[in-house]
Amino acid sequence: MPRYRLTIEYDGREFVGWQRQANGPSIQEALEVAAQRFSNERVTVHAAGRTDAGVHAYGQTAHMDLMKNWACDVVRDAMNSHLMPSLVSVLSVVPADPEFDARLCAIARVYRYRVVNRRAPLALEKGRAWLVSRPLDKERMREGAQRLVGHHDFTSFRALACQAASPVKTLDRFDIVRLGDELHFTAQARSFLHHQMRNMVGTLKLVGEGKWAPNDVAKALAARDRAAAGPTAPAEGLYLMEVKY
Amino acid sequence: MPRYRLTIEYDGREFVGWQRQANGPSIQEALEVAAQRFSNERVTVHAAGRTDAGVHAYGQTAHMDLMKNWACDVVRDAMNSHLMPSLVSVLSVVPADPEFDARLCAIARVYRYRVVNRRAPLALEKGRAWLVSRPLDKERMREGAQRLVGHHDFTSFRALACQAASPVKTLDRFDIVRLGDELHFTAQARSFLHHQMRNMVGTLKLVGEGKWAPNDVAKALAARDRAAAGPTAPAEGLYLMEVKY
Repeated sequence: MPRYRLTIEYDGREFVGWQRQANGPSIQEALEVAAQRFSNERVTVHAAGRTDAGVHAYGQTAHMDLMKNWACDVVRDAMNSHLMPSLVSVLSVVPADPEFDARLCAIARVYRYRVVNRRAPLALEKGRAWLVSRPLDKERMREGAQRLVGHHDFTSFRALACQAASPVKTLDRFDIVRLGDELHFTAQARSFLHHQMRNMVGTLKLVGEGKWAPNDVAKALAARDRAAAGPTAPAEGLYLMEVKY
Repeated sequence: MPRYRLTIEYDGREFVGWQRQANGPSIQEALEVAAQRFSNERVTVHAAGRTDAGVHAYGQTAHMDLMKNWACDVVRDAMNSHLMPSLVSVLSVVPADPEFDARLCAIARVYRYRVVNRRAPLALEKGRAWLVSRPLDKERMREGAQRLVGHHDFTSFRALACQAASPVKTLDRFDIVRLGDELHFTAQARSFLHHQMRNMVGTLKLVGEGKWAPNDVAKALAARDRAAAGPTAPAEGLYLMEVKY
């Protein structure tokens, strides 16, 4: 049974998140319905990262099996034609080994968080970034972010509902760059805990505003207590950029 | 009567264009209503560029007069609070000389046109870029674009409805850069004819696809005939980036 690997872009605003749920449209359901419509098969689409409601993706990766051996470009075009007008797009489809698993085989996930740091409300970036009106000191945040890079128990940055077996993760990198009035936080790890990226950004905002010292991030990490870290940044600024294999 | 200079961002999708029209909401009307609500004065807002329906702005510039001498930051915040939830945002307000005229005093306008060059439909950039599925050769388009830089009669790239007194304009620069699967066309001139940017991009697309040679752009320009140039690129890829004084 041929397996296909999909790279997917979506605007998370329309959806309850990646995963199928009874309470509204999910990206998984949109893709599975599209796959079923063109192939006449019941299909399950397995993603590398189960993004939350409102979270976007430029490079979500998934796998699915079809009985028939289709040309990959036909799969991509057929799925896209059935996906419209929903804001989900299959960027590419390539053949995958039968052992390939989008979630288990990933060696790294790259997330980006976009902050617009200005007083005026968002117009062009509404729903696509977090508006922070108080001026943020990038250098202080960068210092704070460095305290999180490495192999740590990230309990302080983990949603209480997180189902991961262990809170210990390795954060490979966590960079912050400024582009005009935007700040881009880019993090890479083999895997992330639930809300980890948003909790890290929400905490670094406190550092950027001057409420916390950069080293307070290390203290929050050491506390292994969700209450010791900052609030959760909103979903709309978060993008799954790439999954590496 | 104090004059104020405004820098404005907007998502053009919701509007019939900059200019007040009977057939739907305009950006000008949104701003004038917001100004009137907080100041209790009848206000006219004059812009540097009257963008068409669907065209966006990161840096539209306008001026307006108010009877009362307000602090500029108060004007900005009050207008933004009355503009919500429309996707128009006043980025800054500064004092202007009584002689300052946003349209007449501009020495340069910078427009950017965004093309996404790929097969898959747009998800995150829907309504914010032009999707071109056929591969575009950036270098050929750059050669074609260079034929347009300088002081020329741009009749071939001018909408038939254009009301400018003369079709002769000076195009200061016209650059094309590729960022991943995006192409950004950036043009600067003291002023542009109606649809000039979209007609230039629509013509360069023919060059990028290989249907036209770069020098065919020079021939189209020399013809001084709208029918000699390519089609008009859609509004949704166009952004007024900056107005220089």
